[in-house]
Amino acid sequence: MDEANKQVTEKSQEGEKPRDVQDRSSISRRDLLKLAGAGGVGLLLGSVGVGGVWAGTAKLAAPTASTASNADPKQVIPFYDAHQAGIVTSAQDFICFAAFDLTTVKLSEVKDLFRRWTEAAAKMTAGQPVGGEEDQQSMPPADTGEAAGLHPCRTTITFGVGPSMFDARFGLGAKRPEALADLPRFGGDSLRPEWCGGDIGVQVCADDLQVAFHALRNLTRLARGVAVLRWTQEGFQRTGGSGPAGETPRNLLGFKDGTGNPDIHDKQAMNDIVWVQPSKQPAWMSGGSYMVVRRIRMRIEVWDRSTLSDQEATFGRYRSSGAPLGAKNEFDPLALDAKNEAGQPLIPLTAHSRLAHGEQPAEKVLRRSYSYSSGIDRQTGQLDAGLLFICYQRDPRTQFVPIQQRLAKRDKLNEYIVHVGSAQFACFPGARQGGYIGEGLFE
Amino acid sequence: MDEANKQVTEKSQEGEKPRDVQDRSSISRRDLLKLAGAGGVGLLLGSVGVGGVWAGTAKLAAPTASTASNADPKQVIPFYDAHQAGIVTSAQDFICFAAFDLTTVKLSEVKDLFRRWTEAAAKMTAGQPVGGEEDQQSMPPADTGEAAGLHPCRTTITFGVGPSMFDARFGLGAKRPEALADLPRFGGDSLRPEWCGGDIGVQVCADDLQVAFHALRNLTRLARGVAVLRWTQEGFQRTGGSGPAGETPRNLLGFKDGTGNPDIHDKQAMNDIVWVQPSKQPAWMSGGSYMVVRRIRMRIEVWDRSTLSDQEATFGRYRSSGAPLGAKNEFDPLALDAKNEAGQPLIPLTAHSRLAHGEQPAEKVLRRSYSYSSGIDRQTGQLDAGLLFICYQRDPRTQFVPIQQRLAKRDKLNEYIVHVGSAQFACFPGARQGGYIGEGLFE
Ligand code: HEM
Ligand code: HEM
Repeated sequence: MDEANKQVTEKSQEGEKPRDVQDRSSISRRDLLKLAGAGGVGLLLGSVGVGGVWAGTAKLAAPTASTASNADPKQVIPFYDAHQAGIVTSAQDFICFAAFDLTTVKLSEVKDLFRRWTEAAAKMTAGQPVGGEEDQQSMPPADTGEAAGLHPCRTTITFGVGPSMFDARFGLGAKRPEALADLPRFGGDSLRPEWCGGDIGVQVCADDLQVAFHALRNLTRLARGVAVLRWTQEGFQRTGGSGPAGETPRNLLGFKDGTGNPDIHDKQAMNDIVWVQPSKQPAWMSGGSYMVVRRIRMRIEVWDRSTLSDQEATFGRYRSSGAPLGAKNEFDPLALDAKNEAGQPLIPLTAHSRLAHGEQPAEKVLRRSYSYSSGIDRQTGQLDAGLLFICYQRDPRTQFVPIQQRLAKRDKLNEYIVHVGSAQFACFPGARQGGYIGEGLFE
Repeated sequence: MDEANKQVTEKSQEGEKPRDVQDRSSISRRDLLKLAGAGGVGLLLGSVGVGGVWAGTAKLAAPTASTASNADPKQVIPFYDAHQAGIVTSAQDFICFAAFDLTTVKLSEVKDLFRRWTEAAAKMTAGQPVGGEEDQQSMPPADTGEAAGLHPCRTTITFGVGPSMFDARFGLGAKRPEALADLPRFGGDSLRPEWCGGDIGVQVCADDLQVAFHALRNLTRLARGVAVLRWTQEGFQRTGGSGPAGETPRNLLGFKDGTGNPDIHDKQAMNDIVWVQPSKQPAWMSGGSYMVVRRIRMRIEVWDRSTLSDQEATFGRYRSSGAPLGAKNEFDPLALDAKNEAGQPLIPLTAHSRLAHGEQPAEKVLRRSYSYSSGIDRQTGQLDAGLLFICYQRDPRTQFVPIQQRLAKRDKLNEYIVHVGSAQFACFPGARQGGYIGEGLFE
């Protein structure tokens, strides 16, 4: 392996290797370009070369090679880590999200569940079946088998607990984080109980939908007698290799989605925005993060009748380039003060980007949303498709909530969307080997 | 381009290039291996090389390079062809299936719809947006935009009409094919109207779910005022690159699914099994095929409690290798007469493979199924996941129906599945450039 090649491989093992140019942390981008110019050919050859030996390392797409798949299906994102994976991890192609309700009232059984889940999650994210011993003919197989032979596909499994976990059942009331306050009702909400809440939230993401499904199904199976599914939602974005490497994916309204997100490679920003700091209470959440999930249906048929001007005014960005109105490039800053000849703001006062951007840096969230499409809504006869909005933050009360309050009140996008599901979860810090996820809360 | 390389490229443009080793047509397999040995390195280099110029040609994965993605996202499967694409096309990773009902009673409007659909399908399968002219600010964009910048991803769009198309509304009654008889009721069916029937069936497949969704959505939009969605179902299999190239994908019961399928590269077999022959009536179906769709829910929780022996007896195959019971390799023939020491058949009389295999070669069908996972069934509180079973044949009355009658009666698999949806469609022959899909029926 030549030196440059090795360097990139090592980086990729941190599990944060950018597979797309949402990575704007210019150093690794530039490294890549340099490599593509100089040793790039060797790099490509090596990465697709005589199979197997590179297991667990990233295959890098040279930026010029748009046919190459962007992420190596063999890449493993380590499960045991200071933080849980799946939060500042560059978004995989698919999500299987699930909310569970506990059917036990014994805390000891909840602990056991999280111990089993931790062990299984560590295996499945490494591409191994749960269980492990040889299957016996006279027993149900330990693993359900549909991912046999498939690669890890950057699977991450992220666990959290909802506000209901702290009700009378388990005696955990005193440990409830203040930040996990009930979300207020937002104007326009049309929440349906079948897509709300849950004692436990589990976000499974992977670059392969079958691999993600397999993980969630095996977790569900391990919960038998202790917890049942309350609601689930699958989601997708365009597959890694299906577009030019590094383009921001588009949502189902046809706009690039994720441009204004903070940079996941900026550790300082992630500490400021995402990770609960050690100075905060409760201690068991230190190094964790709060996840807010909103199932947001799009009124696709209405949107599809609106003019391009209207659509661009709605987001305050151009559809084609993703650039802010009045600017040229996707990542140009929002010129919130700029006016047109008539003295009107270039980016309308009701534009989604303007309202979501806010004025306070402390209000930022890290979005990690997926598109969904779930057949036809029986109530309306229209496509049930939209956005499974997910964001992570240190404190929803000062981040998601004020943003969403502004959006609910004034966002022009409200003509085209309706929030039908909602949940939030306190996502634990990571587990160390030998420990288990949730240990800090349950012990 | 060297000679060997060129040869493979040309083959791949037929749109039938095997992306996995379900292709057991040994010639192309051997070609590939030869190439990988000799010119393989150059091949790989070329195929990921200085982007863009090779648009529309296949990137070939060397069989040894299991990290490589199996299909080139830039590959276009030609829309205009003697047969419709998406039938004997090696299965893509995703499906968006939709059944439409016509809201018009004017045949002229139906014709116009199919003309618009043909034009749009030709564009979208080539990776182009519908419409085409520059978007105007004061108009709704012609294309909904969420696939902008994405590759064609081997998109196919396959159209058919259901039995209801021939009722009193359009005066087409006399043209109804006898082969499109109503399906009989099968024992155990638990069909729900929301997953049954439809005047028109559209099967969109692609190696990217967002690309497939985009195509179906734009077709739906083009149908406005003429047809509405009746039901839809998304489905998946493991993504091309997520497992060793060429392995038969597994269904959600963990078994390899597709082993016993006829070889799509065997033209004679496809004529015998799939394509309606010129000698048959009606003439407008010559070169077409009949599609049967069954939405089959799996009782996953029950399955997961059954022993490995039970599971293998259910299919008559080993879970791990996919080989028939008593045999060694996946593609070994089913030894239907073999007995164990106790004199019992090795492959039980109620095994799915045995019953589905049948005794008459003329009964074979070409299966093209996908796994689905659609959240939780409100009626049972369990996962709504299973198989979107799709098969193609010359005549369902003598192919799907007798097989399914045997299965419904005796299949051990019935303990673990329930058919909840059903539809069938007469899928037209292909269209030539300048013509439109369905022309033979409507003109
Ligand atoms: C279906 C619903 C939604 C859609 C389609 C949508 C789409 C978009 C788009 C296209 C952008 C511009 C590109 C970008 O910066 O990513 C954007 C920005 C943003 N959205 Fe949304 N969004 C939705 C809901 C929400 C919700 C519920 C929140 C609540 C917190 C939110 C927060 C944000 C933020 C913080 C930004 C970045 C603003 C900036 O700082 O530039 N979005 N959204
Ligand atoms: C959820 C429902 C079903 C599942 C999970 C399932 C699964 C399987 C599996 C694992 C095999 C063995 C591997 C292979 O040859 O592909 C198989 C074979 C087969 N199945 Fe199914 N199947 C289902 C429903 C059906 C239905 C409704 C039909 C109706 C026509 C059918 C027809 C066949 C045929 C023709 C074969 C090949 C038999 C042979 O000639 O060897 N299957 N199926």
